[in-house]
Amino acid sequence: MSAFPEVSKIKYEGPDSDNPLAFRWYNPDEVVAGKTMKEHLRFTVTYWHTFRGTGSDPFGGGTMQRPWDDGSESVENACNRARAAFEFFEKLDAPFYAFHDRDVAPEGSTLKETNANLDAVAKVLGEEQQRTGVKLLWGTANMFSNPRFMHGAATTCNVEVFAYAAAQVKKALEVTKELGGENYVFWGGREGYQCLYNTDMKRELDHLARFFHMAVDYAKEIGFTGQFLIEPKPKEPTKHQYDSDAAACLNFLRAYDLTDHFKLNIETNHATLAGHEMMHELEYAGMQDALGSIDANTGDLLLGWDTDQFATNYYLTTQTMLVLLKYGLAPGGVNFDAKVRRESFEPIDLFYAHIGSMDAFARGLKAAANIIEEGALSKRVDQRYSSWDGELGKKIESGKTSFSELETLMLEKGDASPNTSGRQELLENIFNRYLDK
Amino acid sequence: MSAFPEVSKIKYEGPDSDNPLAFRWYNPDEVVAGKTMKEHLRFTVTYWHTFRGTGSDPFGGGTMQRPWDDGSESVENACNRARAAFEFFEKLDAPFYAFHDRDVAPEGSTLKETNANLDAVAKVLGEEQQRTGVKLLWGTANMFSNPRFMHGAATTCNVEVFAYAAAQVKKALEVTKELGGENYVFWGGREGYQCLYNTDMKRELDHLARFFHMAVDYAKEIGFTGQFLIEPKPKEPTKHQYDSDAAACLNFLRAYDLTDHFKLNIETNHATLAGHEMMHELEYAGMQDALGSIDANTGDLLLGWDTDQFATNYYLTTQTMLVLLKYGLAPGGVNFDAKVRRESFEPIDLFYAHIGSMDAFARGLKAAANIIEEGALSKRVDQRYSSWDGELGKKIESGKTSFSELETLMLEKGDASPNTSGRQELLENIFNRYLDK
Amino acid sequence: MSAFPEVSKIKYEGPDSDNPLAFRWYNPDEVVAGKTMKEHLRFTVTYWHTFRGTGSDPFGGGTMQRPWDDGSESVENACNRARAAFEFFEKLDAPFYAFHDRDVAPEGSTLKETNANLDAVAKVLGEEQQRTGVKLLWGTANMFSNPRFMHGAATTCNVEVFAYAAAQVKKALEVTKELGGENYVFWGGREGYQCLYNTDMKRELDHLARFFHMAVDYAKEIGFTGQFLIEPKPKEPTKHQYDSDAAACLNFLRAYDLTDHFKLNIETNHATLAGHEMMHELEYAGMQDALGSIDANTGDLLLGWDTDQFATNYYLTTQTMLVLLKYGLAPGGVNFDAKVRRESFEPIDLFYAHIGSMDAFARGLKAAANIIEEGALSKRVDQRYSSWDGELGKKIESGKTSFSELETLMLEKGDASPNTSGRQELLENIFNRYLDK
Amino acid sequence: MSAFPEVSKIKYEGPDSDNPLAFRWYNPDEVVAGKTMKEHLRFTVTYWHTFRGTGSDPFGGGTMQRPWDDGSESVENACNRARAAFEFFEKLDAPFYAFHDRDVAPEGSTLKETNANLDAVAKVLGEEQQRTGVKLLWGTANMFSNPRFMHGAATTCNVEVFAYAAAQVKKALEVTKELGGENYVFWGGREGYQCLYNTDMKRELDHLARFFHMAVDYAKEIGFTGQFLIEPKPKEPTKHQYDSDAAACLNFLRAYDLTDHFKLNIETNHATLAGHEMMHELEYAGMQDALGSIDANTGDLLLGWDTDQFATNYYLTTQTMLVLLKYGLAPGGVNFDAKVRRESFEPIDLFYAHIGSMDAFARGLKAAANIIEEGALSKRVDQRYSSWDGELGKKIESGKTSFSELETLMLEKGDASPNTSGRQELLENIFNRYLDK
Repeated sequence: MSAFPEVSKIKYEGPDSDNPLAFRWYNPDEVVAGKTMKEHLRFTVTYWHTFRGTGSDPFGGGTMQRPWDDGSESVENACNRARAAFEFFEKLDAPFYAFHDRDVAPEGSTLKETNANLDAVAKVLGEEQQRTGVKLLWGTANMFSNPRFMHGAATTCNVEVFAYAAAQVKKALEVTKELGGENYVFWGGREGYQCLYNTDMKRELDHLARFFHMAVDYAKEIGFTGQFLIEPKPKEPTKHQYDSDAAACLNFLRAYDLTDHFKLNIETNHATLAGHEMMHELEYAGMQDALGSIDANTGDLLLGWDTDQFATNYYLTTQTMLVLLKYGLAPGGVNFDAKVRRESFEPIDLFYAHIGSMDAFARGLKAAANIIEEGALSKRVDQRYSSWDGELGKKIESGKTSFSELETLMLEKGDASPNTSGRQELLENIFNRYLDK
Repeated sequence: MSAFPEVSKIKYEGPDSDNPLAFRWYNPDEVVAGKTMKEHLRFTVTYWHTFRGTGSDPFGGGTMQRPWDDGSESVENACNRARAAFEFFEKLDAPFYAFHDRDVAPEGSTLKETNANLDAVAKVLGEEQQRTGVKLLWGTANMFSNPRFMHGAATTCNVEVFAYAAAQVKKALEVTKELGGENYVFWGGREGYQCLYNTDMKRELDHLARFFHMAVDYAKEIGFTGQFLIEPKPKEPTKHQYDSDAAACLNFLRAYDLTDHFKLNIETNHATLAGHEMMHELEYAGMQDALGSIDANTGDLLLGWDTDQFATNYYLTTQTMLVLLKYGLAPGGVNFDAKVRRESFEPIDLFYAHIGSMDAFARGLKAAANIIEEGALSKRVDQRYSSWDGELGKKIESGKTSFSELETLMLEKGDASPNTSGRQELLENIFNRYLDK
Repeated sequence: MSAFPEVSKIKYEGPDSDNPLAFRWYNPDEVVAGKTMKEHLRFTVTYWHTFRGTGSDPFGGGTMQRPWDDGSESVENACNRARAAFEFFEKLDAPFYAFHDRDVAPEGSTLKETNANLDAVAKVLGEEQQRTGVKLLWGTANMFSNPRFMHGAATTCNVEVFAYAAAQVKKALEVTKELGGENYVFWGGREGYQCLYNTDMKRELDHLARFFHMAVDYAKEIGFTGQFLIEPKPKEPTKHQYDSDAAACLNFLRAYDLTDHFKLNIETNHATLAGHEMMHELEYAGMQDALGSIDANTGDLLLGWDTDQFATNYYLTTQTMLVLLKYGLAPGGVNFDAKVRRESFEPIDLFYAHIGSMDAFARGLKAAANIIEEGALSKRVDQRYSSWDGELGKKIESGKTSFSELETLMLEKGDASPNTSGRQELLENIFNRYLDK
Repeated sequence: MSAFPEVSKIKYEGPDSDNPLAFRWYNPDEVVAGKTMKEHLRFTVTYWHTFRGTGSDPFGGGTMQRPWDDGSESVENACNRARAAFEFFEKLDAPFYAFHDRDVAPEGSTLKETNANLDAVAKVLGEEQQRTGVKLLWGTANMFSNPRFMHGAATTCNVEVFAYAAAQVKKALEVTKELGGENYVFWGGREGYQCLYNTDMKRELDHLARFFHMAVDYAKEIGFTGQFLIEPKPKEPTKHQYDSDAAACLNFLRAYDLTDHFKLNIETNHATLAGHEMMHELEYAGMQDALGSIDANTGDLLLGWDTDQFATNYYLTTQTMLVLLKYGLAPGGVNFDAKVRRESFEPIDLFYAHIGSMDAFARGLKAAANIIEEGALSKRVDQRYSSWDGELGKKIESGKTSFSELETLMLEKGDASPNTSGRQELLENIFNRYLDK
């Protein structure tokens, strides 16, 4: 029985199409900058929003119509849901999906039972992967929904909760490995604090590092070679999340000697909640060799919480692709950590949402590839810093001068040479030109 | 001739005083938690706001009445201003002051002339320090006001501006050493970017690190043993300041092997602009042994720019002092990086502003000392984490267990033991109790 | 059977008490500024947060331990819960409570059944009011939780949902009248939009006005003489709530000729989400004779959503009481629209939370009364505007002059007389003085 | 002598042009939706940013190279500057300009002298208007830069400053009339407060209303028939601006019986600082017949101050034009209240900036016209509300029903009919389609 009987496989029809169930820009096999779109974009559907999102919010209950889901917490329902999900992935032509352990399988009354539930569903997931060719971008463990994690998981004040979390991640790693997951993500969940008055921040961070080192050890033990990722987010659900932004994550990884094992999964809406542009966080991670994957959504900059909307803005997608083309994305992916609005409750809305965002990223890819190929920005950046390419610049950059020598130079000259214009407005105009092509 | 003829030396009169020109809480020689208030608080008047602030804002010109200042850019005026400043420090009973090079002496037409101007004024500053016993908390170089620094100083795209900045810091270091400065601060100024389209962030940060290493080398060369400080701020004047918050600063210092030489100067208004509480930034720096000094002001959390107001809020001052008592402050200080409002244009307003904030910090010190002495918060924190003090916790903290062992434990137990309440509301009530004493 | 067997009636013990289950400032019968604290403060417990809050958030399920609640949606459970609530009100010495229809009684399968459920529980509420003397500050209808209201209630695009909402408010008005409610509140719920692309804002606002006029008519019909209130909030759950702040509410009321019938219920956390200080919103409403009641909570200004925390900050409570003393509060109240943190899950935390906030408002009341009595601020305000009390000012204020006449005056004088200092810093110091008493 | 010798008249070259000094979309005489682009867009250059902006910011001095300006405050320099400005308007093909009195002419030592200066420059402006055909969109008075206005102009606590402001507006109205200005704008400047402790908000607003009524009277007296506009802005320079957003402005106008005489000048950056989308503020004003004109710029949503950047974002320009096409713009205009970045200091950057934004609005106009013509959004909006077009909806909308009647209906039906999906994602995709044409 089909979950989406009214939808056929989504096809590319080109920019002039007004078929809302066709791609206008995403043409999987079209080659851009030396690779197919499919290889560049590595689109990933998130299980939690798309197949577990109910549309509830703090002010009201669920709204979503999901005829394939009987609403129960049974393993059987979980398996049916998994099959519906793969039908969706296939029809959407999405090469990857990603999940938390608790998204795919229900929690049991003991850890043992919970693990058995996960195994049962993972079997179906594996079969469906086999059947469809859809792959697992990453797995992760949900260590924030169950009340036991109210004070955090690796950073909890309750030592047994830490132990439970360790057991849970162990299992999630095993399942991720078994399903061929190319990465494993740690999103901070409730790793943070609500109030400094009752918090020992140092002790909590020490525990978090200890947790990650055990994860690294266990991955090695079982031969899991996927990339570990942590994910910056500044707040929500806690008042302060320890992984608040890329800088906080990297400072933590450096402080606890974890940089060799972890990269970052950068999310647009988390970046802006932290006061940064997505492009900034991507570039900041990339330049430190720490750009792992992206959670491709968008927030509403006038709202102060994580709205997790589907990204359709061409400026955002082009800026994102500019950085991804620079640093590369694989084994990461463009993961739609986005949910349809509570009022978009029909199954068909899931298609509209994904198609629109896939198109927007495809268009961003093409614009970014053009900008790079024509050196539209880079030529101007190089020129802007060209004074550094001379003798003096080289001496400074290679550490072969000193304050005294530079002072002597400037006392002679009296002042520095004039500056050149930053030309921001011109560059913004040039950027627009690439959205018109 | 007196600059403040209507004001005598400010004295402590106790909480019941309604004399607006007396201290109600700041009693310099009163001993709190084993040291005098003066030793704890190390109050510092900033030269730039208090003696160079004009009251101008982006929408209008200066308003301040400063009868001792003829408004000219002459060295003579600069010397007169310096004398007025020391009269203020003395009457206020402030033990420290801090300055940028360009605050105290005017820029000349060449670097040489500029340096000579600085020397001339520094001589007066030295004499006044001698005369009054007021000391220099720190010096710094203003590398953001002059248009040459429009693209940054150490992170400029113009190599000669970098060289100029190097020469300027060299001189500022010399003058700071000569005047016995206990620290030297690098506030980022325009070290950041306005637009990513024209920016090579990696190259700029490499240059910044190079600059700092040269500063470290030069300090060693001349025997300057004061503490180097960098100062987190997320934005303004640039769209993105590289030293955006404590985490970004520390990540940078770690990445470029500068942690041995630099600590942080944490400012309240910068913390909140970055989305953090002041207490968070202090604790975050402190736990990483990087808390150097504070810029003690406050912002308006409903405004999005650096308002640099005098801090009078007892919650803020108590929270601040809680962390400063924990990690220690010297050789740093409580530096009033704050300015009177544009509409508070009379000289007497400078006194009201400083007195009020000194009192607020003194009251915060007393409350914090009480909270610590009575273990009002710490006892409850210890209790909250007490499950970690048992066998299991010790094993985890010392790295002597693994995911597998923890899984075994949890498979046996089935689930973690119940959590305890976070008691945030109770702790907030307890905090209030200490403001009532 | 007692719901709170471990708690006796909370008593006043004075500021020095360190009993966390005693009042330190709230002394109900103590006379301040001519009335008892009880009369001034009209403390109100909210049913929804305190008796229906589960501790769930968008990232996890409920955490609250509520032994008296069997978790079912039965009328019997609802009645038991109501009895527990009144035990709480009594022990806390809270004179008022407030509810939504759906808080107190479960929704049935038809409107008829739903109304019957409400009647059944209302009977118990009435009995408990009788037994305890606790009164109903206001009733309201929850028109946002049920999925039928996804697009709004009075502003929905679905005409039958509007009709349903009308029926629901009709019933809620009847029950509120029956229980002696002194006010009736309309909080906007989902009256707003998520996206302008699919919204006819004008038509929706016309419908909202129509709804309110019908409510006014029906109140008259049944003789309900309580005050109608609308409640400003800028966002959440919708992207834009029509009642975004006090100004938007008043503009709407004026535009649709509703000012005679409605006042505002001002909430702290809503004020700050809209970018305003609570004191601003109160004063703005008060000066337009539209201050009806307050939702006394606090937000976290560094978080962008409605955190609904218990207010314990003395600055906030003093500022709030300054305005409430100026304009009067009755028939409104100080309604704790606040919830214990998700991690404060024990019943006793409900007591800590309410006691702390009641104390903070009592202390604010005393400070505000002192400030007013001594004219600490008002004398200075009067003096600041004193130039307006002369001839020229009177002429202008009474409309007896013109641009031409004023120009003539100024051409003669050449310029205006000098300004006086705004003295903001001094006033902030003076404010602190009243927190020390 | 030419101010811009290197620039010829900017011409339309079409989307494929990569000439940075040509229009790619703005084709003045091209007809779109029944009018020429020139008629629709009414582009206006602002004198203050473009000819008086120095590039100074709170952290540094001016950077702008303006060879035609000798930097003096002489009338002669002002006249030369005016001629340079008109050369710019002409070469840019901008049909309108706008100014504050103090932008165009220097303040003298008395009001009389100041007025004479203004007359002298106005003469040149008139001649240049005559010569070039460029027209005055609006005049206004700068009542915020001079220190006399530190406490406000019409809302000052200093009655003589009010009188001075009255005289100043009188003169500005006369000059605006003389130069054929089609509107007259009141931007709030410092009409607001820094601190509630020293403010009598009610008295200040009464004065503001009095001021506006005198302006209305004087306009009538001299036969000025241009449209009066006030301009929403929430903060900056004051902590709270009275005209905080469109709702606050309209509530004020209604409260003081000024709606017949004033409309709103809506600015993008002010809208977002107030937490609203530009499209919201436009629609909100438009639906109340109060949309007068726009200040067409953009802010940086991650920065908390008015950055006044040139708008180049096609989403913004298309949304803006959607509303302007709906309600009409004349006699208002698309006024570039925007400034080049401090680092874009060459005269040529002024051209890049204006050209880019003119193109972006032209493209937005074309996209918006297409969306409207094809009913791409409106058809779906109509359909969404179609349930209101039946019997029940008409009855409600016409006020011919009551709560009782609606309750009867719903008691019969039991519940409302199901909702339809909001389709936000689909509409966002459709919007994108129009950016691809």
